[in-house]
Amino acid sequence: MDAFDPAYTGKVFIGSSASYEDSSVVLYGMPMDWTVSFRPGSRFGPNRIRETSIGLEEYSPYLDKHLENYSYHDAGDMMLPFGNPAKSIEIIKETAGRFFADGKFPLGIGGEHLVTWPVMQAACVHDPSVAFIHIDAHTDLREDYEGEPLSHATPVRKICEKIGPENVYSYGVRSGEKEEFDYARTSGMHFSPFEVAEPLKRDLQELQGRSVYVSIDIDVLDPAHAPGTGTAEAGGITSKELLEAIHAIAASGVHVVGADIVEISPPYDSGDQTAIVAGKCIREMLLGWTK
Amino acid sequence: MDAFDPAYTGKVFIGSSASYEDSSVVLYGMPMDWTVSFRPGSRFGPNRIRETSIGLEEYSPYLDKHLENYSYHDAGDMMLPFGNPAKSIEIIKETAGRFFADGKFPLGIGGEHLVTWPVMQAACVHDPSVAFIHIDAHTDLREDYEGEPLSHATPVRKICEKIGPENVYSYGVRSGEKEEFDYARTSGMHFSPFEVAEPLKRDLQELQGRSVYVSIDIDVLDPAHAPGTGTAEAGGITSKELLEAIHAIAASGVHVVGADIVEISPPYDSGDQTAIVAGKCIREMLLGWTK
Amino acid sequence: MDAFDPAYTGKVFIGSSASYEDSSVVLYGMPMDWTVSFRPGSRFGPNRIRETSIGLEEYSPYLDKHLENYSYHDAGDMMLPFGNPAKSIEIIKETAGRFFADGKFPLGIGGEHLVTWPVMQAACVHDPSVAFIHIDAHTDLREDYEGEPLSHATPVRKICEKIGPENVYSYGVRSGEKEEFDYARTSGMHFSPFEVAEPLKRDLQELQGRSVYVSIDIDVLDPAHAPGTGTAEAGGITSKELLEAIHAIAASGVHVVGADIVEISPPYDSGDQTAIVAGKCIREMLLGWTK
Amino acid sequence: MDAFDPAYTGKVFIGSSASYEDSSVVLYGMPMDWTVSFRPGSRFGPNRIRETSIGLEEYSPYLDKHLENYSYHDAGDMMLPFGNPAKSIEIIKETAGRFFADGKFPLGIGGEHLVTWPVMQAACVHDPSVAFIHIDAHTDLREDYEGEPLSHATPVRKICEKIGPENVYSYGVRSGEKEEFDYARTSGMHFSPFEVAEPLKRDLQELQGRSVYVSIDIDVLDPAHAPGTGTAEAGGITSKELLEAIHAIAASGVHVVGADIVEISPPYDSGDQTAIVAGKCIREMLLGWTK
Amino acid sequence: MDAFDPAYTGKVFIGSSASYEDSSVVLYGMPMDWTVSFRPGSRFGPNRIRETSIGLEEYSPYLDKHLENYSYHDAGDMMLPFGNPAKSIEIIKETAGRFFADGKFPLGIGGEHLVTWPVMQAACVHDPSVAFIHIDAHTDLREDYEGEPLSHATPVRKICEKIGPENVYSYGVRSGEKEEFDYARTSGMHFSPFEVAEPLKRDLQELQGRSVYVSIDIDVLDPAHAPGTGTAEAGGITSKELLEAIHAIAASGVHVVGADIVEISPPYDSGDQTAIVAGKCIREMLLGWTK
Amino acid sequence: MDAFDPAYTGKVFIGSSASYEDSSVVLYGMPMDWTVSFRPGSRFGPNRIRETSIGLEEYSPYLDKHLENYSYHDAGDMMLPFGNPAKSIEIIKETAGRFFADGKFPLGIGGEHLVTWPVMQAACVHDPSVAFIHIDAHTDLREDYEGEPLSHATPVRKICEKIGPENVYSYGVRSGEKEEFDYARTSGMHFSPFEVAEPLKRDLQELQGRSVYVSIDIDVLDPAHAPGTGTAEAGGITSKELLEAIHAIAASGVHVVGADIVEISPPYDSGDQTAIVAGKCIREMLLGWTK
Repeated sequence: MDAFDPAYTGKVFIGSSASYEDSSVVLYGMPMDWTVSFRPGSRFGPNRIRETSIGLEEYSPYLDKHLENYSYHDAGDMMLPFGNPAKSIEIIKETAGRFFADGKFPLGIGGEHLVTWPVMQAACVHDPSVAFIHIDAHTDLREDYEGEPLSHATPVRKICEKIGPENVYSYGVRSGEKEEFDYARTSGMHFSPFEVAEPLKRDLQELQGRSVYVSIDIDVLDPAHAPGTGTAEAGGITSKELLEAIHAIAASGVHVVGADIVEISPPYDSGDQTAIVAGKCIREMLLGWTK
Repeated sequence: MDAFDPAYTGKVFIGSSASYEDSSVVLYGMPMDWTVSFRPGSRFGPNRIRETSIGLEEYSPYLDKHLENYSYHDAGDMMLPFGNPAKSIEIIKETAGRFFADGKFPLGIGGEHLVTWPVMQAACVHDPSVAFIHIDAHTDLREDYEGEPLSHATPVRKICEKIGPENVYSYGVRSGEKEEFDYARTSGMHFSPFEVAEPLKRDLQELQGRSVYVSIDIDVLDPAHAPGTGTAEAGGITSKELLEAIHAIAASGVHVVGADIVEISPPYDSGDQTAIVAGKCIREMLLGWTK
Repeated sequence: MDAFDPAYTGKVFIGSSASYEDSSVVLYGMPMDWTVSFRPGSRFGPNRIRETSIGLEEYSPYLDKHLENYSYHDAGDMMLPFGNPAKSIEIIKETAGRFFADGKFPLGIGGEHLVTWPVMQAACVHDPSVAFIHIDAHTDLREDYEGEPLSHATPVRKICEKIGPENVYSYGVRSGEKEEFDYARTSGMHFSPFEVAEPLKRDLQELQGRSVYVSIDIDVLDPAHAPGTGTAEAGGITSKELLEAIHAIAASGVHVVGADIVEISPPYDSGDQTAIVAGKCIREMLLGWTK
Repeated sequence: MDAFDPAYTGKVFIGSSASYEDSSVVLYGMPMDWTVSFRPGSRFGPNRIRETSIGLEEYSPYLDKHLENYSYHDAGDMMLPFGNPAKSIEIIKETAGRFFADGKFPLGIGGEHLVTWPVMQAACVHDPSVAFIHIDAHTDLREDYEGEPLSHATPVRKICEKIGPENVYSYGVRSGEKEEFDYARTSGMHFSPFEVAEPLKRDLQELQGRSVYVSIDIDVLDPAHAPGTGTAEAGGITSKELLEAIHAIAASGVHVVGADIVEISPPYDSGDQTAIVAGKCIREMLLGWTK
Repeated sequence: MDAFDPAYTGKVFIGSSASYEDSSVVLYGMPMDWTVSFRPGSRFGPNRIRETSIGLEEYSPYLDKHLENYSYHDAGDMMLPFGNPAKSIEIIKETAGRFFADGKFPLGIGGEHLVTWPVMQAACVHDPSVAFIHIDAHTDLREDYEGEPLSHATPVRKICEKIGPENVYSYGVRSGEKEEFDYARTSGMHFSPFEVAEPLKRDLQELQGRSVYVSIDIDVLDPAHAPGTGTAEAGGITSKELLEAIHAIAASGVHVVGADIVEISPPYDSGDQTAIVAGKCIREMLLGWTK
Repeated sequence: MDAFDPAYTGKVFIGSSASYEDSSVVLYGMPMDWTVSFRPGSRFGPNRIRETSIGLEEYSPYLDKHLENYSYHDAGDMMLPFGNPAKSIEIIKETAGRFFADGKFPLGIGGEHLVTWPVMQAACVHDPSVAFIHIDAHTDLREDYEGEPLSHATPVRKICEKIGPENVYSYGVRSGEKEEFDYARTSGMHFSPFEVAEPLKRDLQELQGRSVYVSIDIDVLDPAHAPGTGTAEAGGITSKELLEAIHAIAASGVHVVGADIVEISPPYDSGDQTAIVAGKCIREMLLGWTK
């Protein structure tokens, strides 16, 4: 029917057109929020980003690139069992594994930050030498959260244990337990708290030629820029700075193999500004990091 | 991909599964709100109803029927030119005409109430003897609105002129201009202001065997039940009563050929209760009025 | 300038046209909320009612009357000193006194319920035999509130002491202290808790021929119908029932000399349904109670 | 310090004064929402109810009783491990068991409805003949929810299996799967869908003398009365009717041994009307059902 | 009446006192939003700005100037026909033309950005050599928007065609179609994307002595500073920077003949921060750009 | 009861554990907002800050300090008589006096800014040489506000008169009356408008060794960072800058004897970002300024 277009009112992210088979990039949602300790709601993040993406243009004046020249597919949201983190993580790991096996660039939307852990496990199967770039307000370096090893506060620690802390690069952190900061400072991981763009640019020089997976927790932004998130933390960076970081990665010689952006929680943002900034980041990640 | 299901997070209305070709019912959105005089926003109604429909069951305990036994297709939202009512109405009329021509039951979601006018024009081509059941807080009987004949305040007048006021049945009206009430009371149309279920049940007896098109403006509900609408009007009916009216039509011998529900405006309803009640009405209309 | 009309975007209540001198009714706001014990914000009530009144019609199909046949003047909001109840009450008493002296029907919009007290003092000067009809969820019969005699919880007690409890008629009350209910039941006042329309209709027969002042606290409505109020109290009446009560007074032989509607608090009502129902009540009070 | 009072700004529910030891009733929160399928947020329900309870009076004019004559203790919220339903349920069962063992009347506040299941297990240990009164919009009779036996959709089924369906009395249900309705109608449980007060009053006669546990899901109310809930369902009862049901139980000869009210989700209710109606229900439950 | 003051509760913008005849500046609203492609609601912008202006002071510490020394008149909002862009634009053009003819400085409040087009047409009649300063997140350089030449996305293109691109100065743009950026870069217009204050200060030197019309789209601000706008675009400037730009124009030798600020959409900003920043800009524009 | 912990769901500020007697710091709320001229609601500030503090960590990576090493007591909110500023101020003065007399560091949470005045009076009794550091968007230097000397617009003037303007240091001010700015610039007080961190750092050198009381009005932040405040004022500083100022005081040699943070108004901030930034400031003030 000519009058209808699936992208028209935000059912898929703007510019999604290729089928799964024909796509080089797969955009997919992981609507899981059952381990968050403060404010749940990020399960609604992926869809709100799609819905508000109709306010975006498909062209980036920053990169002078256009989505129509990219073959990407918005696969929708995964079906995950409510309240069962272990099973959810299994499903995500298997699905992400299939994306890598099929030669796709997986671009995930959270959901809580724990979803990054199974995707990184799949990334390591695909490429054991992959490094991890982590942009976040929180360390996420706990061994467990009140006894639970599968928690939104633990994924970066798990990834450190998986790929070695020396392959983990963390930026913008301004909150965590003392033990986490001690680990961050002594384990050998690359740790640049409070700031993002400047230390990232420095590190990207040594990362040149390497394959990396990049995970952005939207709460790295100040709550002024991203009020709709589970654990907003004052004193953060601006959306301008986050875009600058994305563009720095795009301009560097690193090989991004996959990425995600997480913790967008629409119920705490009546004007949807968090979904809007996340959508713009996704467009820039798509245009800047994939082919 | 097994992990993904288009209906999972509200991209289509729950239970939509058939393709257009295999469906007997087509659900479609008409996201137009450019002639509203007070609060715009109903362009976001259809999608919010889809999104919140995941909180509904596919089974109706009122009708003891299940969506899985129905072949219906959610076509998405029409592309309509912003700010151009005349062209928008042309597109709607043509699209609805195709639905009727293809033997489908069109179940439309507004958008403002003006969208009913082109659909009824198409319905008349399909079946010139069709009657019109109108459930609404407002008369919508103006000849023009501040000079504009294409306005959300005029569709019922236009329909009266098209099919004759004696074939128009109006319920629940509690607001309008004096001239509109005068017309309602003297033109020969069937006019039952303030109340819905009781007068409707009476009239359904005389309508038996006839084909009808039914249009529900969500503002017939009291603002307590539907705060998210362009022109909320106090003193309305409950959602229980509206469901009772839908079930009365289902139980009568009338032949419903098409229907719509309009004026759901999410920006004025932070808890989405308006989208939720509209979604339940749509399920009952689907199960009760179509085959 | 032809293109501009002060009533167009809610700067005055719909249909206000007469100058103060030519008007028989004066609509005026008393934006005071400094003694409320729970949620302040009713200072913004009068203006939000004006603003949302543009969604109303000037014609009432209930009364078959039209505002264009009434000469009323919207005077705007009084300037009251923030945080000074005593001085605020003085200003209100003096202003209302002038309205009565000038032969106007004062139709006040609150603000907290304490504003009724100075207006009733002025009404008594004008007509010492005036009775008081009180429609409210709360008794408002305290002698003081945590030591303060000038409180939103005391006006009806003060009025009882001024005009005698036997001249006070209270409806719909469902909350108060035990002492207040004891007073209500033993002082000789007419007290019909929980219900409004039925007991009011009974009492109106004995009130025939008398002059009355009527005060409506919007919280007599269930929070479903009026969420935007300082002290919402579950278990209330519907907007249909409140309109029925207003129409019953209009149809009775009582002589209403003045009236108010109070406690509309916009910050707690994101869809403005409370302002909308209050606006409709004001239109019906204007058309039904004044000349 | 004289100037401070823990009850003053909603840190405990109004009127809570006794220590745990001196209390006959314990009010406690179960802030768990990790298995909900649609909108999480009920973890914030108990505290928002406490906060808004300062708008309530301690006296009930319905029952002519006053909280100062009751010795009850607000214990606060349980610490429950985020995202771990099994462990959460263990903690609740153990804690509720201690309440029963200590001779207290446990009055719980959810959280999601699954929390009722461990409390009922504890109630059965305390009194194996206890019956279960269930007031809810949803059947909650699933065996599992997408494979998960510990889900907000399963507690009533589990309770049926535990105490026998003939000891379960369910009211107000208007949503569920066909299989659930089939079970409700054929298993021998007492099932009165759509309505609450009337069928409850009938059944209370046969329940006289028995001990019962009562669970109220706030979504039995129409979304107009309780927009802030995980899975709002249109077509529900009014707050007046729910209060009538509570009062009917108070007036009957049944022996209530414990109770809860669940699924209040503040993020979806900008005016807090859901917390306000829940708070009033809790006061009436306290005054009417306990000693 | 002494107790009443039209400016008291936001019925006019603070400090408005002169009559139209006695004023040198006219503040006026253009409440049109019918061509917006994403989120309508800017029709409520002008009034919300007036309402929140009561939180502002009449004195500017930046400019050391006071509104009491200015004779300006708040004319209210124009009456524009809903859904009819062509007729609306006619009315605006005619009204603005009268302002210029009467020797007034027109200070307009939108409404969508299309309203600038008819005002600029009137400005050109008044002064054919006028230049155009455009501060915005979007290029607004389309020839048409999905076929509609009268769209919120086209005004700057129309102005370029009217006065020549070499007389158009655009700042802060960060979104548009590729074709628009190509036009911006090749047509000869002055185009400084992403930044505002610095490039503007440079250009103001060459503009000295010229007459200019200035149009500010509030979405040039980052959504953190202006969430309430139709098409929020991340990566924008701060309110400090926008004030700096306004002050730079005030300090330069250009002759501002008229100005507007547009796209403030209150429904998407529950705390009204967008109306508040717009109100402060209006005060500074009044004090800095007019006499 | 092991399962319960008063700090668990925000009933006290995170990390509060000591009893009043054992504490060196007392955190206390002053929920007064009855003299505010624009938007009331700050009475709910202290409790919302406690509630959202559960999203904070007890460890500060800025200061490398942990709350567990501090003995502080959250005393809750004072009981203040609604609508009676004079009596409220008496209670605050007396209570704060007791804190000083008992050797505590009082850390107050407003409420409106007038609450600082009685605390400073108590501070002067305790230490007559105390200086006053004032961080705010508004001068607060009026002699009275529309005739009321006890107003949220007057506290700093009163303090100037009490301790001499030469002992008052004011930062970040960007709004006030001309007379206030004149006073600020000529009275001898230290006045650094528009900016905070830089001028503060300069002045801290001359303040070394002195005892100071510090008062932070949250509206010094731009509305982007603190939308939830009574009188939001555009053009403010970021939360990063405010944290920098707090840390500068911590690093200087001044002796802070008490402090407060005021004007957090939750009803105007649907995502609670204002409470969240205030909570973080409180933690840093606790860790940086007290022992």
